[in-house]
Amino acid sequence: MNIGIYIYDNAEVLDFSGPYEVFSTAKRLADNNWQVFLVAEHKSLVTARGGFVVNPHYSFADHPAIDVLIVVGGVHTAELIKPQVINWIKQTADSAKHVASVCTGAFLLAKAGLLDGLTVTTHWEDQADLANMFPSLKVIANKRWLSQGKFTTSGGISAGIDMSLALVAQLISPEHAELTAKQMEYQWHKKT
Amino acid sequence: MNIGIYIYDNAEVLDFSGPYEVFSTAKRLADNNWQVFLVAEHKSLVTARGGFVVNPHYSFADHPAIDVLIVVGGVHTAELIKPQVINWIKQTADSAKHVASVCTGAFLLAKAGLLDGLTVTTHWEDQADLANMFPSLKVIANKRWLSQGKFTTSGGISAGIDMSLALVAQLISPEHAELTAKQMEYQWHKKT
Repeated sequence: MNIGIYIYDNAEVLDFSGPYEVFSTAKRLADNNWQVFLVAEHKSLVTARGGFVVNPHYSFADHPAIDVLIVVGGVHTAELIKPQVINWIKQTADSAKHVASVCTGAFLLAKAGLLDGLTVTTHWEDQADLANMFPSLKVIANKRWLSQGKFTTSGGISAGIDMSLALVAQLISPEHAELTAKQMEYQWHKKT
Repeated sequence: MNIGIYIYDNAEVLDFSGPYEVFSTAKRLADNNWQVFLVAEHKSLVTARGGFVVNPHYSFADHPAIDVLIVVGGVHTAELIKPQVINWIKQTADSAKHVASVCTGAFLLAKAGLLDGLTVTTHWEDQADLANMFPSLKVIANKRWLSQGKFTTSGGISAGIDMSLALVAQLISPEHAELTAKQMEYQWHKKT
């Protein structure tokens, strides 16, 4: 199982580090063969929001096949107008088993045409913008995350941790997700 | 206000990225002059637990004066036997206004002799070890974090987010900590 998290300059730190912590802790506790990695457009240092500098494991050109694609938020506007990014998200999502967004990562999935007709969510501050920009989506508030088919969208920042634990529950078991939350001393919001 | 977070190979990802998210979001929302940065022994890439690679802003040799020192946990055992690390923690803590540990970072503060006689906490899995290794400490369970004078220790991983919000409440205001938690969509455990 390959879990790839897409990051970019000005991505929100906790949007990717939260899910990374969840999936890598779940892997460690299960002692399974999951690979958890960060993918950026290019294989060079990425400066996330607030100046946090991270080195992606892979670029678009060299990453292994992705089974679970996580697209994170932050200042996502520059990504929204890069055809090569949107095309990569579309192609990678098409062959993935699960596709999820954290926070304003939903804008990138929507731009790739992946969320048409679906009920979705994003950061509370951006829900109106998402609905205006993509009228075919039904954007809702007051859910930490929700799934429709293979697509899962979550609210802002910390909600990505809850969503990632829900994916661990699906991919391994609810008990393993509980164990992971306990290890992280995280109070999991189990209800979407 | 300079907020320095000490990181090292095999540090737990959320132990440093959680506080980084809190302090950098609080800074952005306040539009103040806080500097939030990661410090490592050397100025080269640090591989945190699970293979997450981060580029520290500063090394021991070139960081600015630190007002708030955060020492994180993870696989801390290699750090515990490095005199240059323990000495740096001791010296930096002596001149800092606030000193805090996340998770097993408490072992490093204790090794530097900073917690003698204090009531402290750490990750639930490591509380017995901490008490055995440093008998002069009073190690307690069932608190997300607690402060004594300028020293604050927190429980495991996610508890560092709660503790960082509590520091924001002290450094700016409780209202600003609430605003930061809301921006992060984080359900702050306000009580220690």
